[in-house]
Amino acid sequence: MTLIVQKYGGTSVGTPERIGAVADRVIDYCRRGHQVVVVVSAMSGETDRLLGLAQQITESPDLREQDMLLATGEQVTIALLTMALQQRGQAARSYTGPQVPIRTDSAYGKARIEAIDPDRVRADLATGHVVVVAGFQGVDDQGHITTLGRGGSDTTAVALATVLQADECQIFTDVDGVYTTDPRVVSDARRLARITFEEMLEMASLGSKVLQIRAVEFAGKYNIPLRVLSSFTEGEGTLITYEENTMEHALVTGIAFNRDETQLTILGVEDRPGVASAILGPIAEANIDVDMIVQNSGHDGTTDFTFTVQRNDYKAALEIVQDIGARLGAREVKSDNKIVKISLVGVGMRTHAGIASRMFATLAQEGINIRMISTSEIKISVVVDQKYLELGVRALHEAFGLEQEAA
Amino acid sequence: MTLIVQKYGGTSVGTPERIGAVADRVIDYCRRGHQVVVVVSAMSGETDRLLGLAQQITESPDLREQDMLLATGEQVTIALLTMALQQRGQAARSYTGPQVPIRTDSAYGKARIEAIDPDRVRADLATGHVVVVAGFQGVDDQGHITTLGRGGSDTTAVALATVLQADECQIFTDVDGVYTTDPRVVSDARRLARITFEEMLEMASLGSKVLQIRAVEFAGKYNIPLRVLSSFTEGEGTLITYEENTMEHALVTGIAFNRDETQLTILGVEDRPGVASAILGPIAEANIDVDMIVQNSGHDGTTDFTFTVQRNDYKAALEIVQDIGARLGAREVKSDNKIVKISLVGVGMRTHAGIASRMFATLAQEGINIRMISTSEIKISVVVDQKYLELGVRALHEAFGLEQEAA
Repeated sequence: MTLIVQKYGGTSVGTPERIGAVADRVIDYCRRGHQVVVVVSAMSGETDRLLGLAQQITESPDLREQDMLLATGEQVTIALLTMALQQRGQAARSYTGPQVPIRTDSAYGKARIEAIDPDRVRADLATGHVVVVAGFQGVDDQGHITTLGRGGSDTTAVALATVLQADECQIFTDVDGVYTTDPRVVSDARRLARITFEEMLEMASLGSKVLQIRAVEFAGKYNIPLRVLSSFTEGEGTLITYEENTMEHALVTGIAFNRDETQLTILGVEDRPGVASAILGPIAEANIDVDMIVQNSGHDGTTDFTFTVQRNDYKAALEIVQDIGARLGAREVKSDNKIVKISLVGVGMRTHAGIASRMFATLAQEGINIRMISTSEIKISVVVDQKYLELGVRALHEAFGLEQEAA
Repeated sequence: MTLIVQKYGGTSVGTPERIGAVADRVIDYCRRGHQVVVVVSAMSGETDRLLGLAQQITESPDLREQDMLLATGEQVTIALLTMALQQRGQAARSYTGPQVPIRTDSAYGKARIEAIDPDRVRADLATGHVVVVAGFQGVDDQGHITTLGRGGSDTTAVALATVLQADECQIFTDVDGVYTTDPRVVSDARRLARITFEEMLEMASLGSKVLQIRAVEFAGKYNIPLRVLSSFTEGEGTLITYEENTMEHALVTGIAFNRDETQLTILGVEDRPGVASAILGPIAEANIDVDMIVQNSGHDGTTDFTFTVQRNDYKAALEIVQDIGARLGAREVKSDNKIVKISLVGVGMRTHAGIASRMFATLAQEGINIRMISTSEIKISVVVDQKYLELGVRALHEAFGLEQEAA
């Protein structure tokens, strides 16, 4: 007998009818001899409805009270799904996060899981129950209800899989797996049967929002096989695992892109130690996350400094940079919010040279100018003008043969 | 400094705007130097919305899961009210029933409160917080969420007032107090400044649904002054207290009536020991509550047996009675669902004779035939044809001078 933890997102449980379909699917796994723990999100629209109520009361709700409010969303779903399972003759029992208990720190709205006591869930599994757990929520050491932040249900599922030593953690969503790139951009995009945790982290953090980054990190750290599947269609989905030596890797696994970045540049500041921190210090103090950073030293004792921030931090970052530029006596401050970042991702890059040059050549062939480059062990990212997004991604998808299965 | 427990029902917190008005009222009490604990129900309509979702899943939801579902209703309200208090600068904190904790037995859907640990609430009060508690819910000794049944928020408020040794428990509702009778029937009906717990119990159980019976019983048992007030208008409401010797009582405090009863009669069964239990045994086994019971022995060795049951038990009770009548060889089985019960209530009856005869004479003067009579220490109830409801209540209200304050 294997133990599976399944997670169904808000769209998958968006109506009583869909909750019934989830119950059917869960029972199908039980009949095949699996023990099943189900983690669910709030019904789609419910979290926004609750936040809307709060906004009618106050523009800046206290975070403890907001967690109290939002935690009801998943609580409704666990009760309804458990009823649906019972109505189909399957023994089942629901638990809120605090009931499990899923213990977290006290960072309301973005709490981190510290410990889970699996005894209660194990006891119910042992007596033939499906256990239905509210995702996204926990309890701190004072007994206050916390939430893990939006999308945190994935993390709940992976954490439960870890403490229960589950054989697999399955994330059911509205896509049927992880693709080589966004199928809306490249019609040839192909579902990957497997991807490594590291690749998935790069794909996710670069904007392929299939899974929450924290959930993938967690699963990787504890080596829990993670599978992404569709709630609405049959199929094997994509299995996310550790790299296996026997796997024959493609050079490139997928292409991610991110429209959400903007670029800021300070040109011609004195090239001396400490200039980077003089620029990035005030940005960090303003709680603005910086993604790519590039510094080029010129021949005249000055240096150019370019970095990217998320679109909704653009205005604040620009004001700070203009201020810093003036103080440092920079020649010029430039900014651009019409850029896009395109990244090749693949563990194959570790052992194969020449991928970067093939990428740059492919883009050059299409007349696409590269404005920034950043590389890591398993990815190469470039920033280009936003208008080249589709052209660039399609050219790279074809150049690296991603529409075909790896040999 | 006095400690007040206030309870606001679903209509009083039905919209974010109304929740804001409740916050204003609570803060008004704080400014007058009171410590305040607030108990709230689910926003009006929310419980029905949740039950509607469950009904789309299954016709007979498991009661544990139904409690899990319904408990979210009050949890939403406590979060929103606490946000509203904080937004107005008042320190406040919310707790679910399980968080307080309010400990109950495990009778899902109709749990009884067994104990409340007041330490957490007291600690927050001591640091200047308004404490907002979810009504209607608790937790059993296994950590499962329970509900006290519909309207149980009144009981939560009274139980909290008891363990906190509050100076007063205030129930805010959509009426501004307890009236001598239903003002929709008698336009002269007068708000009572005071009423005793016993009278209130009779008024409530007879259909004046201002307060939950269990809450009144509880308040009476622990001698917590209970006040009914309107959420929407200013006023002193009605104070429910123990009878004070110094109070000059009116003969009759109020007139209650109940349209929800139906009458069943078995005529001409053999008058022997055990006939009452032969008739009422099967009724009790079918879980049907009997209200009034009257037995008249005839001169021919037979007896007539009449009793009343709630309207929604009428059909089931009639089938049982027809079956019993046949087995007992009754002359006839009669039934009537077009009746109404009218009751005079007042602790003054204890010490004044002649009230019953004045009641009967008043009804006779109006040509109203009395079909059943039942009396207790502080009430006299009669069953009459439904069509005489308004006529009878108005005549009695005038005959006993209820439109005037007691001398």
